[in-house]
Amino acid sequence: MLDHDLCFTPAADLVRAFRARKTSPSEVMAAVFARIKALNPKINAYVTLVEDQAKREAKAATRALGRGKTLRPLHGIPVSIKDVCVTKGIRTTWCSEIYKDFVPAEDALVVERLKAAGAIVVGKTNSPEFAAGGHTFNTLFGPTRNPWNTALSAGGSSGGAAAALAAGMGPIAEGSDLGGSLRTPAAFCGVVGFRGSIGLVPVYPSQLAWNTLSVQGPMARTVGDAALMLSTIAGTDDRDPLSFAVDTRGLLKAVRSPSVKGWRVAWTPDLNGLLPVEPEIAAVAEKATRVFRKLGAKIDTACPDFSGFVDIIMGTRGIGMVAQHADKLPRWRSKMQEGLVWNIEQGLSLTPGDVARAHLQHTQLWNRVRRFMEDYDLLILPATGTLPFPVELPYPPSIAGKTMQNYMEFFYMTYAISLTGLPVIVVPCGFTKGGLPVGLQIVGRRRQEAAVLCAAAAFERAAPWADRRPPVI
Amino acid sequence: MLDHDLCFTPAADLVRAFRARKTSPSEVMAAVFARIKALNPKINAYVTLVEDQAKREAKAATRALGRGKTLRPLHGIPVSIKDVCVTKGIRTTWCSEIYKDFVPAEDALVVERLKAAGAIVVGKTNSPEFAAGGHTFNTLFGPTRNPWNTALSAGGSSGGAAAALAAGMGPIAEGSDLGGSLRTPAAFCGVVGFRGSIGLVPVYPSQLAWNTLSVQGPMARTVGDAALMLSTIAGTDDRDPLSFAVDTRGLLKAVRSPSVKGWRVAWTPDLNGLLPVEPEIAAVAEKATRVFRKLGAKIDTACPDFSGFVDIIMGTRGIGMVAQHADKLPRWRSKMQEGLVWNIEQGLSLTPGDVARAHLQHTQLWNRVRRFMEDYDLLILPATGTLPFPVELPYPPSIAGKTMQNYMEFFYMTYAISLTGLPVIVVPCGFTKGGLPVGLQIVGRRRQEAAVLCAAAAFERAAPWADRRPPVI
Repeated sequence: MLDHDLCFTPAADLVRAFRARKTSPSEVMAAVFARIKALNPKINAYVTLVEDQAKREAKAATRALGRGKTLRPLHGIPVSIKDVCVTKGIRTTWCSEIYKDFVPAEDALVVERLKAAGAIVVGKTNSPEFAAGGHTFNTLFGPTRNPWNTALSAGGSSGGAAAALAAGMGPIAEGSDLGGSLRTPAAFCGVVGFRGSIGLVPVYPSQLAWNTLSVQGPMARTVGDAALMLSTIAGTDDRDPLSFAVDTRGLLKAVRSPSVKGWRVAWTPDLNGLLPVEPEIAAVAEKATRVFRKLGAKIDTACPDFSGFVDIIMGTRGIGMVAQHADKLPRWRSKMQEGLVWNIEQGLSLTPGDVARAHLQHTQLWNRVRRFMEDYDLLILPATGTLPFPVELPYPPSIAGKTMQNYMEFFYMTYAISLTGLPVIVVPCGFTKGGLPVGLQIVGRRRQEAAVLCAAAAFERAAPWADRRPPVI
Repeated sequence: MLDHDLCFTPAADLVRAFRARKTSPSEVMAAVFARIKALNPKINAYVTLVEDQAKREAKAATRALGRGKTLRPLHGIPVSIKDVCVTKGIRTTWCSEIYKDFVPAEDALVVERLKAAGAIVVGKTNSPEFAAGGHTFNTLFGPTRNPWNTALSAGGSSGGAAAALAAGMGPIAEGSDLGGSLRTPAAFCGVVGFRGSIGLVPVYPSQLAWNTLSVQGPMARTVGDAALMLSTIAGTDDRDPLSFAVDTRGLLKAVRSPSVKGWRVAWTPDLNGLLPVEPEIAAVAEKATRVFRKLGAKIDTACPDFSGFVDIIMGTRGIGMVAQHADKLPRWRSKMQEGLVWNIEQGLSLTPGDVARAHLQHTQLWNRVRRFMEDYDLLILPATGTLPFPVELPYPPSIAGKTMQNYMEFFYMTYAISLTGLPVIVVPCGFTKGGLPVGLQIVGRRRQEAAVLCAAAAFERAAPWADRRPPVI
């Protein structure tokens, strides 16, 4: 195969090709590193690379092909790890000056599982400092650029992961998501990002083990690869008290012969008018409803009542910021990202009443959303109201004429969905006239991750734009 | 059968006797109400009774016996519901003057499930106001008295439930537990209280759906009945976002031929010296280790490091208090229980730093506990360091010479275990020289509820005191 083909072949197909001896982990790894060398200087998706180690492991994986054993699900597949996730022996900085020389002694649980499934870590991907925000830039490494237009943001916080995927610098990527960090960059870069229920993918280490909003999850170029990767990292582990047992085979089965025939789907461009959306995004995303209709689903324009969701964000996020970062302010404040500092200080200004009210409203929101979802199998909506913005800006100044007040507001479309706790995937759903990808959020019922993957796979198969490649390549 | 026998026959045996036509739901219900009439005036376990309705339903359940259908697991079994749990058409006061005339339009999820399993609601049981505290007293209904000595407290907050069970006023009871409310009263009254993992028994309605410390659960006179009741109320429901799928058959199977042979058991009288314990309690509870040894378990004196657990309590409980009750202060303060008012105000005085630190410490505690539990199947310890205290006091002034600073401190032995998130049961483990029951906490590994029930059932079978009856009867 040509390098280009290898770099855009789904992981699932690569493993099959390894099995059939049509290519080898070494060949794929060589192709991936060749692309990284050619493109990473323009994109800045990877901030740390472990080429020697990765190639050595690929060689071992290639040798293992000869032994006739059953291959592990990700045997020899290159994977990137977001640089806020600890990797044994590989520098992990949280994209912060504070940890610029930190080398962990242990792998995160998700890295352990990826390795156990046969995947090979290629390097660490860029993120905003401590993953705070929807645009990937920091003073340590600089910004990640969008492969579809390198003058623009790749989104965040898993921006390096998404840009690497879009540019063919690896088939699967690990990411994380509190307010949209797997989804905004997937939308900006035209790839897939999957956010599961809390506890689906156990998180360890974690400073806040009972956090009920922050998750880790898979990113890929195809829904099938996202499901494949997810099936290797999902499932209970005692280190995460909220993790639960998962039917991982069901996740793989969901994408095999996907159908949404007869499914009831709710569509909203803007959370019932709550959020600004660029008209071109709304128009492109709305076309997705036609695809679902063609596939036999019934579409209503409908949305749960999300009123008050900003108070929930403001009353919950800040405590986490204080817990994880307030101790850094005295020494590092001047070096820390502005949005992050603002957010820690916002957290420090909360009263017990603010926090308590946020929890009460969160429960009320849940009750409205779950009642709504009794009538629908899926809720679909744009991943973000904004197109990728100039990479030099900390966030888009406005969306559809509405001024953004802070660094979080532009990713409220994903953050609002995070608050529901429902599983959600972002899949590419088309392009703007200017050639930028648009992402669609497909939200499922409580803990129905398989249904979300099934719908996304059906949609992807029906979508003619899935094979478009960014101009950078 | 004699009324006395009927009232002390386990629910599991009653259902079998119904099936064999040896007795009937009507006969049992008549016996239970006869006892309630005789004893409740002395004990004050029930605050609301629905005799006519319960007897009508018992009659219907008796008629249904003739139809040859398979009986539901709790067919015709009387059950009490704690008065902080809403019951359709039955006054629900939260034991507060504020709600003294409130009649809910809907059943709580747990009540729905109990009814669906065939149980018949007998009435509502007493609790401290809004279930805040380890002693059951309030201005609306007065205190619940301990059937073993009516001058003493029945414990709390599920004190009415425990006292009703101990006095034979029903075989099973619904209760709830944040810091020990299923366990302290079980210990004080010599019955069984089971606290499962968060999400094992789905909670609805709830003002704080993502609460990770508060649970509902079963109480009974036998471990078998607790398992039986639990099997009817455990399992996922979309109304509780943290609920998860449960192998309910496994819960029943666990108590059938219970064995702890070869199990590794850690024993601590006092959380490694962190908490005061009356010497007589420590001595009685320690004898339980001999029972486990006789059953083939290996016992070590060992305990995870619980240091800092008080900060976790102080930094988490208050926010819930503020969320649920701060709005009541302006109007109702003078009528609200002192401990409750203190606790709301403590919550209002928290800083974001206090709350954040509590979350961080909570995670650190979890990591220490789960590492400890890698080496043990069970941790056993007393349920409480104090014996039942005079019913007129809001809490015991001291334990083993240590002065209690607030209304919570005397139930830290259970509260500390709540913080671990681990499943835990309280079973009677003996009596003091003065004839008061002592309770043992048996704590299992994460989500190993079946193992906890199995160990408790094995212990109960080996325990010679299980058939003692309180003098009040």
